[in-house]
Amino acid sequence: MEDRFEKGMNILKITNGDKIEEIFKEFEDIAPDLARFIVEFPYSEIYTREEVDLKTRELCTVAALTAMGTAGPQLKDHIGGALNAGNSPKEIVEIIIQMSAYAGFPAAINGVMAAKEVFEEKNLLPVK
Amino acid sequence: MEDRFEKGMNILKITNGDKIEEIFKEFEDIAPDLARFIVEFPYSEIYTREEVDLKTRELCTVAALTAMGTAGPQLKDHIGGALNAGNSPKEIVEIIIQMSAYAGFPAAINGVMAAKEVFEEKNLLPVK
Amino acid sequence: MEDRFEKGMNILKITNGDKIEEIFKEFEDIAPDLARFIVEFPYSEIYTREEVDLKTRELCTVAALTAMGTAGPQLKDHIGGALNAGNSPKEIVEIIIQMSAYAGFPAAINGVMAAKEVFEEKNLLPVK
Amino acid sequence: MEDRFEKGMNILKITNGDKIEEIFKEFEDIAPDLARFIVEFPYSEIYTREEVDLKTRELCTVAALTAMGTAGPQLKDHIGGALNAGNSPKEIVEIIIQMSAYAGFPAAINGVMAAKEVFEEKNLLPVK
Amino acid sequence: MEDRFEKGMNILKITNGDKIEEIFKEFEDIAPDLARFIVEFPYSEIYTREEVDLKTRELCTVAALTAMGTAGPQLKDHIGGALNAGNSPKEIVEIIIQMSAYAGFPAAINGVMAAKEVFEEKNLLPVK
Amino acid sequence: MEDRFEKGMNILKITNGDKIEEIFKEFEDIAPDLARFIVEFPYSEIYTREEVDLKTRELCTVAALTAMGTAGPQLKDHIGGALNAGNSPKEIVEIIIQMSAYAGFPAAINGVMAAKEVFEEKNLLPVK
Repeated sequence: MEDRFEKGMNILKITNGDKIEEIFKEFEDIAPDLARFIVEFPYSEIYTREEVDLKTRELCTVAALTAMGTAGPQLKDHIGGALNAGNSPKEIVEIIIQMSAYAGFPAAINGVMAAKEVFEEKNLLPVK
Repeated sequence: MEDRFEKGMNILKITNGDKIEEIFKEFEDIAPDLARFIVEFPYSEIYTREEVDLKTRELCTVAALTAMGTAGPQLKDHIGGALNAGNSPKEIVEIIIQMSAYAGFPAAINGVMAAKEVFEEKNLLPVK
Repeated sequence: MEDRFEKGMNILKITNGDKIEEIFKEFEDIAPDLARFIVEFPYSEIYTREEVDLKTRELCTVAALTAMGTAGPQLKDHIGGALNAGNSPKEIVEIIIQMSAYAGFPAAINGVMAAKEVFEEKNLLPVK
Repeated sequence: MEDRFEKGMNILKITNGDKIEEIFKEFEDIAPDLARFIVEFPYSEIYTREEVDLKTRELCTVAALTAMGTAGPQLKDHIGGALNAGNSPKEIVEIIIQMSAYAGFPAAINGVMAAKEVFEEKNLLPVK
Repeated sequence: MEDRFEKGMNILKITNGDKIEEIFKEFEDIAPDLARFIVEFPYSEIYTREEVDLKTRELCTVAALTAMGTAGPQLKDHIGGALNAGNSPKEIVEIIIQMSAYAGFPAAINGVMAAKEVFEEKNLLPVK
Repeated sequence: MEDRFEKGMNILKITNGDKIEEIFKEFEDIAPDLARFIVEFPYSEIYTREEVDLKTRELCTVAALTAMGTAGPQLKDHIGGALNAGNSPKEIVEIIIQMSAYAGFPAAINGVMAAKEVFEEKNLLPVK
């Protein structure tokens, strides 16, 4: 069991960096197992597989969360993760814009505004 | 007509307690009929039926609203309602976690965070 | 090209009035092309067509965004647009209430609360 | 009670014509009350109100169901209802196309294809 | 690892009975790991927990899938699972009807029609 | 204008190959402008931009449509497009599986089954 957890944590350290502890703390007094499931299932069992690289995986997740439009905080987390996995701000914005065709302009606009908040914190504006 | 309204109000008093007046007041100057429809249709015509008890009904509603991910304020209201109908914090959190399998982790995480806010107000943290 | 942009801007001036500049500014340092796409595609190529008038178009958009439940800021913008296109507050609220049948009460409630915020800013409360 | 049911049935006779019996029959052995709720709540309590006319109501419902993308059979029913309430095929198609901007092209395409099936049955193709 | 898989299979045998092999076979030549993840994550790690019993869990899943409206085949599977876990046809239909209030009538109607197909195969119609 | 249309058609020829005529024909008698909008807006104005390559764009679209779960026919089209743009069946399946974490297992299962249909037609099963 330990092994699965560690494998997932190794990916999370790349994508979420020093924010991990903060995330775990949020779940501590209400649903610590949910935090463990996230580490052990998607991060350990899916993101570690070699079929697709981490950079592309994170970009696809940004696309999906933008299109769904129901996962504001997670979209921001994964925009950060997409940056950490090697995507440029421009690539991220480009894929969010692309979602206007599949999920409509409101989804794309809200995605862009989420990216703006993340980029602002990291001094990545303006996107060139 | 009065009768349908009263029947619905009797359920609402159990699930929403002393918050009811506040809710009605919010609708007063814009859509009082919508408030009336909610009392007269779901609370009066559905929740009063004996096929399923109120405790289970509220838990199912928490499950559905968590999975939909588009009804933040109503999810919080129904987490409160689920407590008032006899569900323990642990049961509520458990069903929200279960939604990760059907609607994804972001939906479950946002559901857990909604529960955390409700439980915090009621001094029900940590959930044991 | 200029022509398509101008055609779209002429509609936007009716629906969004003096808020347009503010909107463009928000996109400026992150995704100016997305703002241009919105002017050139829906506003220029769809809203200008004569098959349905602007008043009805905006009311249908309010209906759709209320039902989707994922486009909070855009719903508020289009409630404003629906007013500017000639819908009364009562008509707008009525169509939002109608959505309770197709997308559930939470969608309708959140739609009504969005309308309340817009109407409040414009001193249109109470809706009679 | 009878009264509410009758009021709703009067609208349903306009929008769904001779298909009503068929619809009730489908629910008969599993959930007859759900059919009754539909007549008594949206058709009786919402569609009868004078704030918005039936033609516009049905067009807004077509917009919403197209955008939601989860209600295939009901979208077809309401495209039929929109015709019966006085909308031309062109108006209906136009509003479905408009949804591409708010819910993406797949939603609009699926809406158009639903309309095509309805129009074909009624010999309304090609739409001019 | 074997252990997690077996734990999940024990639940699946209760909820899906003799259909399990068929399910695994469908995934065999395209995504066998996805089938394994489903056994090892939700069925092994969530459904085995004692906080909520299997009967209630399956009813909550039926509620959620009905409300989401995007999971036709899975809704039918879980209606079967809900029966196998001890829910009566009437309880299942009741919770599906309840979803009309949260996700609209189309979601509830489509849920009821899914239940009708499942009940028909099992000679459980009419529901009394 | 011609120019925008041609630019989009050049991308469509890569992603959809000889199916394009068939697609246009479907829209001919009901909404030819919608087909034109699709060529001129997403294919011409978004997919031609150099920020992200076509292979990655199509994979992101597969991710988003899988997660949304409301675009069955379009998901199949874009799984075909993803193959034509250079993605292997394994990469496509991998990204669909990844969506289980963000949109739940039903979305991922339905995505995998859509891929199975596409791969079957192209003799790409079993995926290795």
